[in-house]
Amino acid sequence: MLTESGCTQRQQNLFALLPGDVEWVLVGDPRHVQYFCGFRANPISFSAFESALLLMQRDGTSVLLADNFTRRTAADPVYAFREEIAAWYDHKHSVINRDHILRDLVARHTRDLDVAQGLIEAEAISAAIASVVGNVRSQVATESGQQSTGSMIRQLRRCKLPDEIELLRRCMDAGAAGQLAAFQAVRAGVTEIDVYLAVQAAAQQAAGRAAVVYGDFRATNASSFKAGGLPTDYVLQAGDLFILDFSVVIAGYRSDFTNTVAVGVPSAEQLSQADACISALRNAEQSLRADELCSNIFTAADNVLVERGFAGLSHHAGHGLGMEHPEPPILVPESIDILRTGDVITLEPGLYVEGTGGMRFEHNYLITEQGAERLSHHRLGLQAG
Amino acid sequence: MLTESGCTQRQQNLFALLPGDVEWVLVGDPRHVQYFCGFRANPISFSAFESALLLMQRDGTSVLLADNFTRRTAADPVYAFREEIAAWYDHKHSVINRDHILRDLVARHTRDLDVAQGLIEAEAISAAIASVVGNVRSQVATESGQQSTGSMIRQLRRCKLPDEIELLRRCMDAGAAGQLAAFQAVRAGVTEIDVYLAVQAAAQQAAGRAAVVYGDFRATNASSFKAGGLPTDYVLQAGDLFILDFSVVIAGYRSDFTNTVAVGVPSAEQLSQADACISALRNAEQSLRADELCSNIFTAADNVLVERGFAGLSHHAGHGLGMEHPEPPILVPESIDILRTGDVITLEPGLYVEGTGGMRFEHNYLITEQGAERLSHHRLGLQAG
Repeated sequence: MLTESGCTQRQQNLFALLPGDVEWVLVGDPRHVQYFCGFRANPISFSAFESALLLMQRDGTSVLLADNFTRRTAADPVYAFREEIAAWYDHKHSVINRDHILRDLVARHTRDLDVAQGLIEAEAISAAIASVVGNVRSQVATESGQQSTGSMIRQLRRCKLPDEIELLRRCMDAGAAGQLAAFQAVRAGVTEIDVYLAVQAAAQQAAGRAAVVYGDFRATNASSFKAGGLPTDYVLQAGDLFILDFSVVIAGYRSDFTNTVAVGVPSAEQLSQADACISALRNAEQSLRADELCSNIFTAADNVLVERGFAGLSHHAGHGLGMEHPEPPILVPESIDILRTGDVITLEPGLYVEGTGGMRFEHNYLITEQGAERLSHHRLGLQAG
Repeated sequence: MLTESGCTQRQQNLFALLPGDVEWVLVGDPRHVQYFCGFRANPISFSAFESALLLMQRDGTSVLLADNFTRRTAADPVYAFREEIAAWYDHKHSVINRDHILRDLVARHTRDLDVAQGLIEAEAISAAIASVVGNVRSQVATESGQQSTGSMIRQLRRCKLPDEIELLRRCMDAGAAGQLAAFQAVRAGVTEIDVYLAVQAAAQQAAGRAAVVYGDFRATNASSFKAGGLPTDYVLQAGDLFILDFSVVIAGYRSDFTNTVAVGVPSAEQLSQADACISALRNAEQSLRADELCSNIFTAADNVLVERGFAGLSHHAGHGLGMEHPEPPILVPESIDILRTGDVITLEPGLYVEGTGGMRFEHNYLITEQGAERLSHHRLGLQAG
């Protein structure tokens, strides 16, 4: 889980980026409220799509603003210096428009905010709320030009702190349990949904709690060699390949890794194609280190596939991982991104071949100055070991 | 699923409520985009918390604005007259702040919007987007005073159209499958999480697709007689009562009903307490009809509990059901709400008694002029039939 010291450090890192006259920042993207104080409305709750706001001050005090029903869904500790929770619903009276509760909470601060320079996250603060804050900046001058609050926070988010990496490992442990279950679940006669349910259950058992499990849970085969998205009622047949490319989301962070499982005994062509993909992954892995061009990582994966006589990559070689999907850095041929220490990224070469089927294999990595630490530990391969 | 004719009717109903000079309305709450055109970013996807906007015109044309990665997650048909989908990510280039894509899409319309009177949903349109729309109204005068766009849509949402009721029935069928599975899953020696996983799987199998299943999955007993929320690793013991009060969310709509299952053979006290709750439900059910005061429905449930010698209700007797939880009408002692034809509501009397345990029972109803149609059909009772 995110820690108090991690949240404090992230707030300090934000103010260090900002001009010295910015005394407060108001954020509203649920990812960013969580990033700075740990609070997130549980996505598996009736308040999944309700909002909370975090008002951060340069002196380290911060205030979480939320309605009582949103606040109570939190599954994890909250490290705001203070909380202002408004009673929206009390089981005794009718309710008003819930969005107005949050606006009225912010309005209580209008006068305080007016006496110091501040910054709002205009991308994620509603117009109704911004109107009670007054005429406040939503972007500041930086070395790379005017930047919005949301864009600056996204930059910060690339460099994961220790609590974030620990949380990502927890997501990955749950994901690995799901991948392991798939070796049992994938067999002729079951539906894609059956496999999804087995994987979802195993991942949540390992997580020790309800968690969103999303991604690609789809069979491919000789004629239908490219498929993605949530599972259908398609019944698996011998010779199919089942792509499991999924994320387990815990406290807003997510793992993201793939394996492909053969239904029945894989053919020689399928095994050879898998070997090419996994070799592409290993080769790209060798190039991972801070300051490397992301376009070079793409090339390192792509070259292996071409050398083996396959078409090159038809999608990215990988991308950044954290609270959003995908997020920078992006490992594609025209990428202008450069790897940085603290990036967590994924590598996921795949091949989708008519006559053989589609497959993809993937691991997740933490970028370091010298190279990369692989964070995911599931088995790659068409069959159980 | 929502239908084209339903979406068209809902748009017409909105414009019928508005002053005649309002030519366009821009909405951003994901619930409202879905309500009027069927589009929703799949909550079980990487785009769960991304936004789309719907620009509706009085002449019936509407435009869905979204980025390509948000758009592609839709699990259900979209009935916008036109779609403007911006390429945010193409697997070839680095990405920019995704929120800015939507703002730039809206900016293309600034000039068109300026020539006619319009209305924005200020509660759910970001300040960044509102700033490119210009100085536009977000509330209008109505019989009951100034009302915001979001509040007017919430009023409309109470009266469910046939496609919404059909969709709610589908959620309820999936919920009933989950309740049925619970009679098998609840037994001594398993954890709350085990029960959740069995119910979640059964509900999704019945739904035929991945769906969010959230709610209370908690054991109560003589000493810990009040519990709610997502499951824990608590191991069920003979004598416990397991409260299953959950929703299955399909296309943004949700069922919401409870049963309580005894672990082992229920005691005479537990059976008597359950009988009181179910009798309270039946009594409140008799009072359901359009124009009834919601406070009276509360009293109808509460009175039975008191007559049976129990404390009265410690929470609401029920609430409206649809895209939000809870939503008006609210069935509580101080409610100012009145039932209307087309309301879908839930009744859920419960008792939480030291020495016996906590329990709750619940059904969902469609309010009609003459009375109510019960929409949910799961078994109520501490034991399987």
